[in-house]
Amino acid sequence: MFEAKTYIDRRNLLRKSVKSGIIVLLGNNEAPRNYPNNGYHFRQDSTFLYYFGLNHSGLVGVLDVEADTDCIYGNDYTIDDIIWMGDQPAISELATSVGVKKSYPLSELSKTVLSAIRRGRKIHFLPPYRLHNTVQIAQLQGIHTARVHDYVSKELIKAVVAQREIKSAAEIAEIEKACDIGYKMHVAAMKMCRAGIYELEIAGAIEGIALQFGNGVSFHSIVTQNGQTLHNHYHGNKLTDGRLMLCDAGAETLMNYCSDFTRTMPVNGKFTDKQKDIYNIVLAANIKAQKEAKPGVTYQNVHLAVARVMAEGLQQLGLIKGNIDDAVANGVVGLFMPHGLGHQLGLDVHDMEDFGENYVGYDDITTRSAQFGLGSLRMGKVLREGHVVTSEPGCYFVPALIKKWEREKINSSFINFQKVENFLDFGGVRLEDDILITAAGCRKLGKHHVPITVEEVEETMM
Amino acid sequence: MFEAKTYIDRRNLLRKSVKSGIIVLLGNNEAPRNYPNNGYHFRQDSTFLYYFGLNHSGLVGVLDVEADTDCIYGNDYTIDDIIWMGDQPAISELATSVGVKKSYPLSELSKTVLSAIRRGRKIHFLPPYRLHNTVQIAQLQGIHTARVHDYVSKELIKAVVAQREIKSAAEIAEIEKACDIGYKMHVAAMKMCRAGIYELEIAGAIEGIALQFGNGVSFHSIVTQNGQTLHNHYHGNKLTDGRLMLCDAGAETLMNYCSDFTRTMPVNGKFTDKQKDIYNIVLAANIKAQKEAKPGVTYQNVHLAVARVMAEGLQQLGLIKGNIDDAVANGVVGLFMPHGLGHQLGLDVHDMEDFGENYVGYDDITTRSAQFGLGSLRMGKVLREGHVVTSEPGCYFVPALIKKWEREKINSSFINFQKVENFLDFGGVRLEDDILITAAGCRKLGKHHVPITVEEVEETMM
Ligand SMILES: [Mn+2]
Ligand SMILES: [Mn+2]
Repeated sequence: MFEAKTYIDRRNLLRKSVKSGIIVLLGNNEAPRNYPNNGYHFRQDSTFLYYFGLNHSGLVGVLDVEADTDCIYGNDYTIDDIIWMGDQPAISELATSVGVKKSYPLSELSKTVLSAIRRGRKIHFLPPYRLHNTVQIAQLQGIHTARVHDYVSKELIKAVVAQREIKSAAEIAEIEKACDIGYKMHVAAMKMCRAGIYELEIAGAIEGIALQFGNGVSFHSIVTQNGQTLHNHYHGNKLTDGRLMLCDAGAETLMNYCSDFTRTMPVNGKFTDKQKDIYNIVLAANIKAQKEAKPGVTYQNVHLAVARVMAEGLQQLGLIKGNIDDAVANGVVGLFMPHGLGHQLGLDVHDMEDFGENYVGYDDITTRSAQFGLGSLRMGKVLREGHVVTSEPGCYFVPALIKKWEREKINSSFINFQKVENFLDFGGVRLEDDILITAAGCRKLGKHHVPITVEEVEETMM
Repeated sequence: MFEAKTYIDRRNLLRKSVKSGIIVLLGNNEAPRNYPNNGYHFRQDSTFLYYFGLNHSGLVGVLDVEADTDCIYGNDYTIDDIIWMGDQPAISELATSVGVKKSYPLSELSKTVLSAIRRGRKIHFLPPYRLHNTVQIAQLQGIHTARVHDYVSKELIKAVVAQREIKSAAEIAEIEKACDIGYKMHVAAMKMCRAGIYELEIAGAIEGIALQFGNGVSFHSIVTQNGQTLHNHYHGNKLTDGRLMLCDAGAETLMNYCSDFTRTMPVNGKFTDKQKDIYNIVLAANIKAQKEAKPGVTYQNVHLAVARVMAEGLQQLGLIKGNIDDAVANGVVGLFMPHGLGHQLGLDVHDMEDFGENYVGYDDITTRSAQFGLGSLRMGKVLREGHVVTSEPGCYFVPALIKKWEREKINSSFINFQKVENFLDFGGVRLEDDILITAAGCRKLGKHHVPITVEEVEETMM
């Protein structure tokens, strides 16, 4: 937890940026796994953490804009609970620890909200992503659960995004801690990677590292020799000599700040020439992104600059042809990199994605492209000092996608499908770093450099 | 997955034991963590796994008793999904793989249920423990979510318990695999345990082992130098010379069968005489349980036999006094062991606890005691060949509980509170094994013996 003043300042600013009404921030509850008392590892809501810092289930924070007050709603443990659970802080103590002067039992919350509604005041809440909170909002507002999303406060979303997306020095220090855990995970993966080992053994080992030094992984690790399958959480393959293993994994600190790195390595420890060709295009793209990213530039344009580097590389290999500018403008690179260059990173690995991607990655100036590939870019808007984003170019050979484009003659004047088909069994390469936008440009986060060049990766694997 | 015949036979038996109507078994859905697309690691519902074996989210299985048919409801992936996720089996293929001949899109389910209701047929479902399934049942039945638990089928619960509680040879083999992962975890914990290391480092490392060789832990690991706090998932202490570390942890196999072991060890690797005194009482209790557990005996009586061994030991140390039989009958041992001797174990670490403990651990012959301590026993009924239960005696010194009993003069004629107070900083000891009830008696599960005697533990820690 940060000191109380941090949370007080954040709440004061939020109350100033929302014009009127009461702001209801729901914390998360325990999530049952296979029976009521066997829950998943508790994860607090990130916005609740940002404004209240309390990592306990069953809490709700309320900010009253006009009255300029905050309070916490939650239920104290009973004396019987304490026999089984040891001493537990009272809700009032939790509240005090983050500078909140008032606290009430949870049963009081509906009265507070009802009385505000009766006086015609606006109730601001964020889009819920857990059914428990959807139901809670429906009950508080007196509406059907199916209508909850119509009542979400866009004003609140925008105010919270404006605050959370600019990271303070203390937050950056936390993200760097998460990066250092990520470093340990990726180096461990490189050292374990070899033909004959199961993907699961590596995935489990690196998830264990994330649990040893923080709050576990920030998302399901992708550890696969089928990197061309982008949404791949299958870990059942035995690694095969000649394949590339793609490892996309990150950690959360105990304060729930996240990291997110991807590295790709040859299963047998030595890249083939063909693998190096593709790998070095992606590496050049990764370097290009970090050269272009700076305040005032849109990340959409950084994505396009990266796409150009990839197009040039792919042209040199003979996989694409024709005018490079036209190829990029027509989205040819989307065949090889169907996803975007990156996303914001913070208390969530895709920061604030629960609000809707467009509120976080786009604004009135920069809107989302409809083009395949570029349209998947989560963060497109103008970069500002204090933004933390991922830079994660990749190059994949997705058989189903290649066949679709060939069949439907998509961008066929730019693509040498015959040559592309030599790569149908190639897999995929992605190289992802976490970068902070600084006054001058950007810098990679993390005390330690995660091996990334062909030479560094091969040496780490030796 | 087992072969299709296993699931066909199980469903045939279930249809025979439920007299009439349709049986609706809901699988689990993805559970969002901090935003919609960042879910917890998927865990299928155990009963769904037992009858249908499919480890995929969003499925519902229906057994029609009179028509003697089964079917699966679920939605196929689209071609767009397949570009991102790789080839995915169709629902019809999944169904066929477990011997189910018919499958339909999920939208057909409500029609099936509605038409059954209209014809006056009984709809059997189990108590839901995830809100998503509660809502789904409410919608299918046309009732309010608050009333869902009134509609639960006790007949179905009893039929499922009767099947699931007797483990087949193939299931026992799976539980033994889980035990072997548990063995690796506990030996690793013993080897890592030393003054100065954080509890979290050990907890993370052993959870990593569970993820490397199976589906992760079967419940939140307890790794603590405050073993006296029974519900303890705090891992923030640095281990201190002189304390005992209690480690209660188990694994799930990839088929979701569970293990559950507890070991207790001196942080510095050598038990003191005082620690040995208490430790050996618990070890004697653990051995006694395995001597007494056999078909035809209630586990409640095994608990009481264990309590007697503990009472004798505690009397020798001068902590309790008076007639031993009376002490046990009055529940004196509950001060030192407030929990029960064990629970059933299978596809859940507390097997079928989602149905309600009394349906699983008690029956018309054996009812739950109201006494503190014995009343916490989850499994009390007559043991039968094929039951798998934990045997987990423990001895704790819980300051809040000791003070309560002393203040309220509970069993004060049996307890030497002055001597007990010498143990207020002792912590707690628990020793837990997983045992199979055999024709002749019982046996410990797991190929490897998890070190348990003072000598074995000290040697492993060297
Ligand atoms: Mn990423
Ligand atoms: Mn247990």
